Amino acid sequence: MSEKNDTFKLIDPEQLSVELIEAQYALKDSRGKENAKSLVILVSGIELAGKGEAVKQLREWVDPRYLHVKADPAYLFTANRTFWQPYARDIPAEGEMLVMFSNWYSDLLATALNESEPMDDTSFDAYIKDMQEFEQDLKNNHVDVIKVWFDLSWKSLQKRLDKMDPSEQCWHKLHGLDWRNKKQYDAVQKLRKRFTDDWYLVDCESEEARDQQFAQYILKHLKELPVHPTQSILEWQQAEVPEQLLNPSNEKTDKDVYKEEMKKLTAKVAEALRFDGRQVVLAFEGMDAAGKGGSIKRIVKKLDPREYGIFPISAPEKFELARPYLWRFWTKLNEETISIFDRSWYGRVLVERIEGFASEVEWQRAYEEINRFEKNLNNSKTVVIKFWLAISKDEQEARFKSREELPYKQYKITPDDWRNREHWDDYLDAAADMLQRTSTSYAPWHVISTNDKYTARLEVLRSILKQLEAD
Amino acid sequence: MSEKNDTFKLIDPEQLSVELIEAQYALKDSRGKENAKSLVILVSGIELAGKGEAVKQLREWVDPRYLHVKADPAYLFTANRTFWQPYARDIPAEGEMLVMFSNWYSDLLATALNESEPMDDTSFDAYIKDMQEFEQDLKNNHVDVIKVWFDLSWKSLQKRLDKMDPSEQCWHKLHGLDWRNKKQYDAVQKLRKRFTDDWYLVDCESEEARDQQFAQYILKHLKELPVHPTQSILEWQQAEVPEQLLNPSNEKTDKDVYKEEMKKLTAKVAEALRFDGRQVVLAFEGMDAAGKGGSIKRIVKKLDPREYGIFPISAPEKFELARPYLWRFWTKLNEETISIFDRSWYGRVLVERIEGFASEVEWQRAYEEINRFEKNLNNSKTVVIKFWLAISKDEQEARFKSREELPYKQYKITPDDWRNREHWDDYLDAAADMLQRTSTSYAPWHVISTNDKYTARLEVLRSILKQLEAD
Repeated sequence: MSEKNDTFKLIDPEQLSVELIEAQYALKDSRGKENAKSLVILVSGIELAGKGEAVKQLREWVDPRYLHVKADPAYLFTANRTFWQPYARDIPAEGEMLVMFSNWYSDLLATALNESEPMDDTSFDAYIKDMQEFEQDLKNNHVDVIKVWFDLSWKSLQKRLDKMDPSEQCWHKLHGLDWRNKKQYDAVQKLRKRFTDDWYLVDCESEEARDQQFAQYILKHLKELPVHPTQSILEWQQAEVPEQLLNPSNEKTDKDVYKEEMKKLTAKVAEALRFDGRQVVLAFEGMDAAGKGGSIKRIVKKLDPREYGIFPISAPEKFELARPYLWRFWTKLNEETISIFDRSWYGRVLVERIEGFASEVEWQRAYEEINRFEKNLNNSKTVVIKFWLAISKDEQEARFKSREELPYKQYKITPDDWRNREHWDDYLDAAADMLQRTSTSYAPWHVISTNDKYTARLEVLRSILKQLEAD
Repeated sequence: MSEKNDTFKLIDPEQLSVELIEAQYALKDSRGKENAKSLVILVSGIELAGKGEAVKQLREWVDPRYLHVKADPAYLFTANRTFWQPYARDIPAEGEMLVMFSNWYSDLLATALNESEPMDDTSFDAYIKDMQEFEQDLKNNHVDVIKVWFDLSWKSLQKRLDKMDPSEQCWHKLHGLDWRNKKQYDAVQKLRKRFTDDWYLVDCESEEARDQQFAQYILKHLKELPVHPTQSILEWQQAEVPEQLLNPSNEKTDKDVYKEEMKKLTAKVAEALRFDGRQVVLAFEGMDAAGKGGSIKRIVKKLDPREYGIFPISAPEKFELARPYLWRFWTKLNEETISIFDRSWYGRVLVERIEGFASEVEWQRAYEEINRFEKNLNNSKTVVIKFWLAISKDEQEARFKSREELPYKQYKITPDDWRNREHWDDYLDAAADMLQRTSTSYAPWHVISTNDKYTARLEVLRSILKQLEAD
């Protein structure tokens, strides 16, 4: 049920402004603190209902420096971009507020109303479901989302069009739709009713009431920001550690065989990656020295340096910590057709779980968040190929020692690496949970034994070929 | 004189790789340290000379995870974008290396060769001068820049075109030029010779020599990274503090006059900003409580919230500190037609100078860097309007106290604000130097007395109108 403010009353604008500023500064002040939040306000509605004016008035009542606004032309949906990609970079940091005139719902409406390729209800509703889940993930990760629909009757819309000053049309762009067309008005109303159930509806017949309804709703929301969930799962079902992680195979490949095979496979992989119409995302996880860097080197060997990007992932920076943990991956995924991650978003359920950087409730929730993230990518013509490189504890020790001996490899070994070995079993447990909970049909894990580097590297390349062919 | 490596010798590739990796990790390891650096490698050249292959080979010899690559289609120059704008975001952080296939020189060549609008030599050379100055500013701010031209004779180029495998053309795109045309080849050579004086020239007749020349040059450079300059100006010429800063006018405006004037001026300013064909950048500086927020509020009063962006500037974050201090402004300037900065890049010569966050040599150099930055903007159809809001020390104290008394204004006052008052005279000195050294014809300062808020706000709006009309 969409909310309607039946008890709405006009209040003294000065009082409203003071309260809004207080609430806004309280939000700003929450930065870095236990219950820090940011707020995204999606605004959509009927043309000329006055969402621009309402936001303008809001920005006069608050401190405008801390209320950001995003307004782009509609991004019509394409097969190879998720609905959140055009907006990912702007998701606000803790303490910030953002009004989004352009948002995934306005894009959905624009796409559905695009006459050349109408969208059926099933696809439309599937998008809505994905969007609502995405918003829930935002909320769980401290970005609150509120949605406001500015409504206007057909009659009033026509009256306003009659009275409209042509000189104002430069920023009232009417967004490519013909609002003189009753059929089209009805189509918009019919479509938006499929998703506005959890929206706040502002009746825009009166301007004063409209602006106050909108501002009061935001104020009410700011005053009652939901508390972060803290309830973790009491009896966590730890997955059994697979044999391959406990005792990775030591199967060896002869050097000559390796060289010959490698030559063929690097060429095949480069060709497969290059001519695959989809985007490809490769993620590497595994203990230190398991051979992530070496594997990546072989994947890109025959690729042109302009065809791919490699993203080495280490601890997040402060500006990244102030946003949902997936944010730094969302924003990287726009850039390249082939994206290779040396460590990835799985840090949430590995190092962050083990070192306590994520709370229990946070990492426990992350498996599903990650699955949804990968599903979104998969739906957007992106192949997600994930590797766990399994090394034995002894082999790791041997590699650490050899790194310490070779001058040009000393940079690759730090006291942290030795310290992480103390958590060896915790990492195995975490990896086991990860493999069990995030091996999906759309983004399967490839577990590769890496005690023998040659065997492992060949296996990585073969797995890439296999998944590209299978999908 | 362009560099030529006359003593060039092929060396053992494995040895070269080891040394490159060592040098690369030493760079990476410099992060956050005294002599931290990043490296930008601009590569351009004749088609099929093999810059792609040389970078591919380089990426095989180094750790590819820490050698980033940027390759976009050419950005043809437009009247309202500086040459560095498309690349600003990618300027690497300390410790990182970036190869730029697409860069300001390739854009310049593409623009100059664009037949519909040929560029005269004077404009061409003016761009080169600006680019070289920009690179010097990058270097002074710890981003080293090296430039490599991959050259190939007309004869060899034709031979390679003859032999070219059509299936490879997908990533050898030939960049829209007809390399079978001798006249056009000569035109490229003639043009590039206007700027390659300080480039490293790689002769690309032999592939092996080409790749090694390129890699060896980068290695040599990495081993000899220039030390940060530390020599400040021994006898700094402190500017005299202008009377208006010492004793801001107390001239009062009557409330009724203010209201009426304000109504007219906000509408006029909104219209002037909206219909000015140029981009507009407004920067506000001044002591705490001088009225920056209040002035900004009045500027945007009649604007649509989608027409402008406000950027409140506080201390830089770690990822910003790892780049030139202007970087966070370069990257913000892409976003809006009207950009309003509440504090700005002048922090370098104000708070950073006073608090010692910038060294003497850094802030002393900054005046010219800022002037060049604003000149670039001005050349790109951007109006830069700068305000110093001058308040008296007594009036500031009165405002601080009233803020402490009003509950909804308490957020606006912190212990820092009181502490900054201890540096009052230092700020006046710094402001005096700033006004003297950065008041230019293309970006003048407006000094506004703000002891009376009404008078000040009106004066700010009038100054905007005046500068928009004058330019």
